[in-house]
Amino acid sequence: MTEAEFVKFLQDTFPFRYGKGIGDDTSVVKIGDTSQLVTTDILIENVHFRLEDFTLEELALKSLAVNLSDIAAMGGIPRYFYVGLGFPRKMGKKKLAAFFCGLEKGCRQWQVELAGGDYSSSPMIFISIVVVGEARNPIYRDNAQTNDLVGITGFTGESAIGLKMLLAGEVKTGYFIEKHKHVTPEIEKGQVLSRYVNAMIDLSDGLLIDLNRVLTASQKGARLAYEKIPVNPQIKDICFQNGWDEYEAVLAGGEDYVLLFTISEQKEMKLRNENPGLEYYIIGEINDQKGSLVVEDRGRPIRIAHLGYDHFEV
Amino acid sequence: MTEAEFVKFLQDTFPFRYGKGIGDDTSVVKIGDTSQLVTTDILIENVHFRLEDFTLEELALKSLAVNLSDIAAMGGIPRYFYVGLGFPRKMGKKKLAAFFCGLEKGCRQWQVELAGGDYSSSPMIFISIVVVGEARNPIYRDNAQTNDLVGITGFTGESAIGLKMLLAGEVKTGYFIEKHKHVTPEIEKGQVLSRYVNAMIDLSDGLLIDLNRVLTASQKGARLAYEKIPVNPQIKDICFQNGWDEYEAVLAGGEDYVLLFTISEQKEMKLRNENPGLEYYIIGEINDQKGSLVVEDRGRPIRIAHLGYDHFEV
Repeated sequence: MTEAEFVKFLQDTFPFRYGKGIGDDTSVVKIGDTSQLVTTDILIENVHFRLEDFTLEELALKSLAVNLSDIAAMGGIPRYFYVGLGFPRKMGKKKLAAFFCGLEKGCRQWQVELAGGDYSSSPMIFISIVVVGEARNPIYRDNAQTNDLVGITGFTGESAIGLKMLLAGEVKTGYFIEKHKHVTPEIEKGQVLSRYVNAMIDLSDGLLIDLNRVLTASQKGARLAYEKIPVNPQIKDICFQNGWDEYEAVLAGGEDYVLLFTISEQKEMKLRNENPGLEYYIIGEINDQKGSLVVEDRGRPIRIAHLGYDHFEV
Repeated sequence: MTEAEFVKFLQDTFPFRYGKGIGDDTSVVKIGDTSQLVTTDILIENVHFRLEDFTLEELALKSLAVNLSDIAAMGGIPRYFYVGLGFPRKMGKKKLAAFFCGLEKGCRQWQVELAGGDYSSSPMIFISIVVVGEARNPIYRDNAQTNDLVGITGFTGESAIGLKMLLAGEVKTGYFIEKHKHVTPEIEKGQVLSRYVNAMIDLSDGLLIDLNRVLTASQKGARLAYEKIPVNPQIKDICFQNGWDEYEAVLAGGEDYVLLFTISEQKEMKLRNENPGLEYYIIGEINDQKGSLVVEDRGRPIRIAHLGYDHFEV
C-alpha cells in the first residue's frame, strides 16, 4: 500500500462533515469568521531520531517545531498544543524536566501555549504533539492550478546532509547538523504567502515527495529546473568528498521544513512587489499532465533512486 | 516525583490564557456560547496492552473509548478525533486495515468522526488519540464541596479482574475479560449528570487514585463506605479462589471507565427524582479534611497496598 492509497482509503472510510478532514497538513473546521486548524505529528525514538544525537530539550523543540510547520503550511497562526509523551522511567526526572524546559522555550519562541496532554512510562521515547491554530484564509494542497509557478522559501538538502553526517558518526556539530537538529517553522512567511498562493505544503519528507502530494491532490503535473533550486555550495563539495548523491539530498532529503507553494504568474509579481524582503525561489511550474513530475538540470532529465521518505514503503 | 507534583510543575510552567489547560480530563476553551473540550490519551504496547490479548479492531475501539470517557467525565459531547499511530511494518496491511475498521465501528457506535492524524512505522504499537468535543456546562474535578455525596455510575473491579485473568494466562474469554477489553464510555450519563453534579472524573487508574485527584484539585477529603460500592458477587469468589485482594481490585483496579461524581444532597434527590432509570450508587461523602481519604468496610478502616496505577511511581 502506498501513502496515496492509504489516504484514499481513509478519506473513503471516514467522511468528515465538520469541515476538511484527512488529506492536508491540518484539518480545517470553520468556527465563526475564522477556521480552526488542528495537526498532529508523532516522533518515535530510532525511527525519527536517535537519542545520542539530541538533548531532551532539543528533541522537545524539534517535535513542537515540525508540528508548527504544518500550521505554517496552511497559512495559519498556531495558538496552543497538547503533548502525549511516552518516556522510559529509567531516564529519570532531570531528562523529563529538560524535555518540558524545551517545550517552554518553544512556547516563548513561537508564542504558543501548552493546553494539556498525557504521560506514560514507555520502553522508548514516543512523542505525539497536536497543535491547534487558526487561519482566516487557509491554503490547501489540492488547489495548484495549471501554469502556476512553483516556489520554495529556502534551501533544501541541508538537514539531510546533517543527518548523514550524524549517522556517519564522525562529527557531532557543525552547520548542517545544527540545521538538522533545529527546525524553524516559517509561521510568518506562511501567513504572508497565504494572501497570494493557490496551494502550499511544508517540506517534511523531501521536496519531490511533498510536491508530489500537491500534484496528486490537485490532479496536476510539474516540471522543475534543478539549477533554480537554491543549494548551499558546500553541499556539492561534501557530496563529492563522501560519494553522496547531491540530487538525492536536495530533492529527496527531507526535514527541510521550508514551504513549497504554487502561485499564478500575476500573483507572484504582486508578491514580489509588495514584499521586497521576502526570501523565496521559483523552481518550476505546474502543468496539466496529471501525475507527471519531471526534474531537469539545465535541460537534462534527472533520475533519483527514491522520491523521499515514505513510511508505507515495504 | 508524584503525579500531583508533576501536574503542579506543569501548571506553574505553562500558564494557559485561552481557558482551562492542564489538570483536568480535558482542556476547556470557550468558543461562542459553548466550550470546546480537547483530551488526549496515549496507549503503548506492553504498557497499556499486550498484543496477544487484543485484536487490532478491539485495540482501536478501546483506544477511542478511553478518550471518549474523558469527554464524558466533563459532561461533554464528543465530536471528532485525531489518531497518531506507530505501527510495525512487519504486521502487514491486513492488521492495519483491522485497526481502522475498529475506528470506523467506533465512529458509528459513538457518533464521532475521524478528522486527521499521523502515521509512522514503529518498533511497537503506539496509539495517540485526541478527541475534540463540546459542553455547554463543563464539569471540573476541582469543584467538590464539603458535605457533597460521592457517587459512581457502575461497578468497579471487573476490568481489573479480567486483566488479572488474562495475565494469569489460563483463560482468554469470559465476562470479566470482555469487561477489560470492551470499554463503554458513559457519554449520555455524563451529560445528564452534568446538570446536577459539582465535580466529576472518569475512573481510569482506580477508584481511589481518581477520587484522590478530585480531592487534591478541590482541596477536600472524603470518607467512603466500602459496603456501598457495588461489587459483582463473583469477584468475591474469584478473589478468594485465586488469593487475590478484593479490596485492591475494587478500589485500585483501574480501567473501570465509570464516572465518579460529587453532588449536594439536595441535587442528588433532584437527580433521582428526575431520572428514575439512571444507574448510580452513593458510596461516601466529601469533608473538609484536606488530603484525607478514609475507606471503611462496615465501620472498619481498610488499608490497601497501593492506591492504583501511577505512571510516576519509581
